[in-house]
Amino acid sequence: MATERSNEPIGVFDSGIGGLTVVAALQRLLPSENIFYLGDTARVPYGGKSRRTVERYSIEIGGLLLAERAKVIVVACNTASALAVPRMKEIFNVPVQGVVAPGAEAAAKSTRIGKVGVVGTRATISSGAYEHAIQGINPGIEVLSAACPLLVPLIEEGMFDDEVTRTMLARYLGPMLGAGIDTLVLGCTHYPLLKKAIAEVAGPRVTLVDSAENCAHAVKLLLAESDLSAAPRRLGSLSVALTDATEGFLRVAAHALDLEIGDVALRSVQSEEKQGV
Amino acid sequence: MATERSNEPIGVFDSGIGGLTVVAALQRLLPSENIFYLGDTARVPYGGKSRRTVERYSIEIGGLLLAERAKVIVVACNTASALAVPRMKEIFNVPVQGVVAPGAEAAAKSTRIGKVGVVGTRATISSGAYEHAIQGINPGIEVLSAACPLLVPLIEEGMFDDEVTRTMLARYLGPMLGAGIDTLVLGCTHYPLLKKAIAEVAGPRVTLVDSAENCAHAVKLLLAESDLSAAPRRLGSLSVALTDATEGFLRVAAHALDLEIGDVALRSVQSEEKQGV
Repeated sequence: MATERSNEPIGVFDSGIGGLTVVAALQRLLPSENIFYLGDTARVPYGGKSRRTVERYSIEIGGLLLAERAKVIVVACNTASALAVPRMKEIFNVPVQGVVAPGAEAAAKSTRIGKVGVVGTRATISSGAYEHAIQGINPGIEVLSAACPLLVPLIEEGMFDDEVTRTMLARYLGPMLGAGIDTLVLGCTHYPLLKKAIAEVAGPRVTLVDSAENCAHAVKLLLAESDLSAAPRRLGSLSVALTDATEGFLRVAAHALDLEIGDVALRSVQSEEKQGV
Repeated sequence: MATERSNEPIGVFDSGIGGLTVVAALQRLLPSENIFYLGDTARVPYGGKSRRTVERYSIEIGGLLLAERAKVIVVACNTASALAVPRMKEIFNVPVQGVVAPGAEAAAKSTRIGKVGVVGTRATISSGAYEHAIQGINPGIEVLSAACPLLVPLIEEGMFDDEVTRTMLARYLGPMLGAGIDTLVLGCTHYPLLKKAIAEVAGPRVTLVDSAENCAHAVKLLLAESDLSAAPRRLGSLSVALTDATEGFLRVAAHALDLEIGDVALRSVQSEEKQGV
């Protein structure tokens, strides 16, 4: 049964626009839910920044989502999920769902030979978050990781079907494909936009684990368990806010994901870096 | 004659690390000067952000340079030069030198047939700053511009000599080379690191205008005119500070530019975005 908070929005955040892949997956799975999306485009990308900075930015954005009455916070950014979710769970009094845990579970279930590849930003990969999560489920699974720093810029240029993108994918995936992985985690919420090209390079023997898709399933479960699911038979809304006025990649992504995005609001961010060496 | 302020540092800032090309040019030209470099790596890149955000970030970083007793502020970032220098000149009581004006002057001098190409980030190109500056000197010069959003990520990956980089350069430069430019402005302080590959793609008939190099010449002149040049026959120092602890590309750039960088300090940044639509 729906509680009084059940019609409040799911708060979704990403460092930029990539998290819209999670929004698209949430809308397919939970069409009755209201979604409030906040992209921290004033400080995008998080992928090359330090743990402390990513944690600080994430907590700040989490607070802005709570100000929008979010009933749950979805961290639709692998870098922030890898670096900031533990601290956010301590601080915030609503459920916090990242993308790493659901992706790791799906990967552990998918692999038959115990060899999983993970691709993501430099920060996500060097955090070891997926490796840790997958081996926490099954220590026997071998995890091969590759940081793919050029994929986000290529995706943001809309170069989904392009020789340059395929060349870079072949370089990034070459070693793990050579090592015989049978499962590949798309450990960045931008990457589902490149699923077709990745599937072509990886070949038919490799199962792709879409962290956006799996995150949406985890949110569904979380809402049901917490008695926070929206009343069915209503049509949920989507509101999008950014921290910088430049929309850039927003329209490209919305088009590719078939999302209806109306007016985009601006939200304020404030940040301080302590002095030190 | 040197004034009492003459041994205070030249304050140089960039959104990230690219401005070190300006530092290298300054050291070659003005070996006696102390240089304080501040890279806003917590919020890099500026190239895709809005004018208001870039202006606000630049003014904040300018204030931090003044706190280091900078005798002059060098905006070693084309995006910030294009969008924020006019406002900085109003606000600050020390000379402010950007990279756009010296690059535009050099380009106007260089072209023989009156056709100049400009490459830069999306924000620099869409600001029209180079076009405006070049045509302010000579309205008869035709300016052809191309935003090259993938070049900074490629350079930050150290892919200076790479098939993918050459492919992207050929795409970006193709139309302006086809139109017959004889001068090409490298309108981003990252690009001098790619000078060799750009020269290969552009061919021997095109003169490259290095905005870092020309900016250093403008600073030399500015210091002499303002009676702020350091006493000769001393060896200047270089201090580097960043706003995020991740050094990332710093060591790649320092190595490529043959710069000696010791300990890197951290500086605080604070930012607010007003609410609105």
